[in-house]
Amino acid sequence: MYVVLVYDMEADRTQRMLRLCRRYLTHVQNSVLEGEISEGDLATLRGEIEDTLIAGESVIVYELSSDTLLDRTVYGDDPTEDSRFL
Amino acid sequence: MYVVLVYDMEADRTQRMLRLCRRYLTHVQNSVLEGEISEGDLATLRGEIEDTLIAGESVIVYELSSDTLLDRTVYGDDPTEDSRFL
Repeated sequence: MYVVLVYDMEADRTQRMLRLCRRYLTHVQNSVLEGEISEGDLATLRGEIEDTLIAGESVIVYELSSDTLLDRTVYGDDPTEDSRFL
Repeated sequence: MYVVLVYDMEADRTQRMLRLCRRYLTHVQNSVLEGEISEGDLATLRGEIEDTLIAGESVIVYELSSDTLLDRTVYGDDPTEDSRFL
Protein backbone atom coordinates (compact mmCIF):
# COMPACT_ATOMS: atom_id res chain seq x y z
CA MET A 1 0.00 0.00 0.00
CA TYR A 2 0.94 3.64 -0.27
CA VAL A 3 1.32 5.77 2.82
CA VAL A 4 1.60 9.51 3.40
CA LEU A 5 2.82 10.35 6.90
CA VAL A 6 2.97 13.78 8.53
CA TYR A 7 4.48 14.50 11.93
CA ASP A 8 4.47 17.38 14.37
CA MET A 9 7.18 16.97 17.00
CA GLU A 10 8.84 19.08 19.65
CA ALA A 11 11.58 21.00 17.82
CA ASP A 12 14.48 19.15 19.40
CA ARG A 13 12.88 15.74 18.76
CA THR A 14 12.15 16.16 15.06
CA GLN A 15 15.23 14.25 13.93
CA ARG A 16 14.26 11.27 16.02
CA MET A 17 10.94 10.83 14.20
CA LEU A 18 12.52 11.55 10.84
CA ARG A 19 15.17 8.89 11.38
CA LEU A 20 12.55 6.35 12.36
CA CYS A 21 10.19 6.99 9.45
CA ARG A 22 13.01 7.19 6.93
CA ARG A 23 13.76 3.55 7.51
CA TYR A 24 10.52 2.80 5.66
CA LEU A 25 9.47 5.88 3.68
CA THR A 26 10.87 8.69 1.55
CA HIS A 27 11.25 12.17 3.02
CA VAL A 28 9.42 14.54 0.67
CA GLN A 29 8.91 17.73 2.68
CA ASN A 30 9.91 19.21 6.02
CA SER A 31 7.70 16.96 8.16
CA VAL A 32 6.22 14.70 5.48
CA LEU A 33 7.22 11.25 4.24
CA GLU A 34 5.56 8.93 1.77
CA GLY A 35 6.04 5.70 -0.10
CA GLU A 36 5.12 2.11 -0.75
CA ILE A 37 5.24 -0.01 2.38
CA SER A 38 4.25 -3.58 3.18
CA GLU A 39 1.52 -4.27 5.70
CA GLY A 40 4.08 -5.85 8.00
CA ASP A 41 6.45 -2.91 7.90
CA LEU A 42 3.55 -0.51 8.41
CA ALA A 43 2.46 -2.40 11.50
CA THR A 44 6.02 -2.23 12.85
CA LEU A 45 6.27 1.46 12.05
CA ARG A 46 2.94 2.21 13.76
CA GLY A 47 4.20 0.55 16.91
CA GLU A 48 7.48 2.43 16.85
CA ILE A 49 5.66 5.72 16.33
CA GLU A 50 3.45 5.10 19.34
CA ASP A 51 6.52 4.28 21.43
CA THR A 52 8.28 7.47 20.33
CA LEU A 53 5.61 10.15 20.75
CA ILE A 54 5.31 12.25 23.90
CA ALA A 55 2.57 14.67 24.95
CA GLY A 56 1.93 17.46 22.48
CA GLU A 57 3.33 15.57 19.50
CA SER A 58 1.34 13.87 16.77
CA VAL A 59 1.67 11.76 13.65
CA ILE A 60 -1.05 11.26 11.03
CA VAL A 61 -0.81 8.23 8.74
CA TYR A 62 -2.89 8.26 5.54
CA GLU A 63 -3.10 4.79 4.09
CA LEU A 64 -4.04 4.51 0.44
CA SER A 65 -4.38 1.57 -1.85
CA SER A 66 -1.44 1.89 -4.22
CA ASP A 67 -3.41 2.67 -7.35
CA THR A 68 -5.86 5.22 -6.03
CA LEU A 69 -3.76 8.31 -5.51
CA LEU A 70 -5.33 10.38 -8.26
CA ASP A 71 -2.82 13.15 -8.34
CA ARG A 72 0.19 14.46 -6.47
CA THR A 73 1.32 17.98 -7.32
CA VAL A 74 4.28 19.83 -5.87
CA TYR A 75 4.12 23.62 -5.98
CA GLY A 76 7.19 25.73 -5.36
CA ASP A 77 10.55 24.17 -4.70
CA ASP A 78 10.34 20.40 -4.65
CA PRO A 79 12.28 19.51 -1.52
CA THR A 80 13.03 16.04 -2.84
CA GLU A 81 15.33 17.70 -5.38
CA ASP A 82 17.22 19.36 -2.54
CA SER A 83 20.29 17.54 -1.31
CA ARG A 84 19.38 18.12 2.33
CA PHE A 85 16.58 15.60 1.82
CA LEU A 86 18.81 12.88 0.39
CA MET B 1 -12.75 14.71 -4.13
CA TYR B 2 -10.67 14.50 -0.99
CA VAL B 3 -7.45 16.45 -0.66
CA VAL B 4 -4.55 16.30 1.79
CA LEU B 5 -2.33 19.38 1.57
CA VAL B 6 1.02 19.93 3.29
CA TYR B 7 2.99 23.15 3.20
CA ASP B 8 6.51 24.24 4.08
CA MET B 9 6.75 28.03 4.29
CA GLU B 10 9.21 30.58 5.57
CA ALA B 11 8.45 30.92 9.28
CA ASP B 12 7.01 34.43 9.06
CA ARG B 13 4.79 33.52 6.10
CA THR B 14 3.16 30.40 7.53
CA GLN B 15 -0.02 32.18 8.56
CA ARG B 16 -0.54 33.50 5.06
CA MET B 17 -0.68 29.98 3.58
CA LEU B 18 -2.77 28.70 6.46
CA ARG B 19 -5.34 31.47 6.01
CA LEU B 20 -5.56 30.76 2.29
CA CYS B 21 -5.97 26.99 2.59
CA ARG B 22 -8.38 27.25 5.49
CA ARG B 23 -10.91 28.89 3.22
CA TYR B 24 -11.32 25.47 1.59
CA LEU B 25 -9.92 22.80 3.91
CA THR B 26 -9.71 21.80 7.57
CA HIS B 27 -6.52 22.39 9.53
CA VAL B 28 -5.53 19.03 11.03
CA GLN B 29 -1.89 19.42 12.03
CA ASN B 30 0.78 22.10 12.18
CA SER B 31 1.28 22.42 8.42
CA VAL B 32 -1.37 19.98 7.16
CA LEU B 33 -4.94 20.54 5.96
CA GLU B 34 -7.43 18.13 4.46
CA GLY B 35 -11.02 17.84 3.37
CA GLU B 36 -13.62 17.43 0.66
CA ILE B 37 -13.29 20.05 -2.04
CA SER B 38 -14.99 20.59 -5.39
CA GLU B 39 -12.95 20.50 -8.58
CA GLY B 40 -13.66 24.18 -9.12
CA ASP B 41 -12.52 25.21 -5.67
CA LEU B 42 -9.43 23.04 -5.99
CA ALA B 43 -8.51 24.72 -9.26
CA THR B 44 -8.93 28.12 -7.60
CA LEU B 45 -6.87 27.04 -4.61
CA ARG B 46 -4.08 25.68 -6.81
CA GLY B 47 -3.84 29.05 -8.57
CA GLU B 48 -3.77 30.95 -5.30
CA ILE B 49 -1.06 28.66 -3.93
CA GLU B 50 1.12 29.26 -6.97
CA ASP B 51 0.65 33.01 -6.59
CA THR B 52 1.58 32.89 -2.91
CA LEU B 53 4.75 30.77 -2.88
CA ILE B 54 8.21 32.27 -2.99
CA ALA B 55 11.58 30.57 -3.45
CA GLY B 56 12.34 27.91 -0.87
CA GLU B 57 8.68 27.24 -0.03
CA SER B 58 6.59 24.33 -1.19
CA VAL B 59 3.11 22.85 -1.07
CA ILE B 60 2.22 19.25 -1.90
CA VAL B 61 -1.38 18.45 -2.83
CA TYR B 62 -2.50 14.80 -2.65
CA GLU B 63 -5.76 14.37 -4.51
CA LEU B 64 -7.81 11.30 -3.68
CA SER B 65 -11.16 10.13 -4.86
CA SER B 66 -13.43 10.38 -1.87
CA ASP B 67 -13.68 6.64 -1.24
CA THR B 68 -10.07 5.56 -1.64
CA LEU B 69 -8.60 6.73 1.61
CA LEU B 70 -8.30 3.32 3.24
CA ASP B 71 -7.34 4.54 6.66
CA ARG B 72 -6.40 7.67 8.52
CA THR B 73 -4.83 7.23 11.94
CA VAL B 74 -3.76 9.95 14.34
CA TYR B 75 -1.07 9.02 16.85
CA GLY B 76 -0.37 11.19 19.85
CA ASP B 77 -2.33 14.32 20.56
CA ASP B 78 -4.91 14.92 17.85
CA PRO B 79 -4.42 18.60 17.09
CA THR B 80 -7.94 18.94 15.75
CA GLU B 81 -9.14 18.49 19.32
CA ASP B 82 -7.01 21.45 20.36
CA SER B 83 -8.76 24.80 20.44
CA ARG B 84 -5.85 26.53 18.72
CA PHE B 85 -6.86 24.67 15.57
CA LEU B 86 -10.49 25.77 15.64
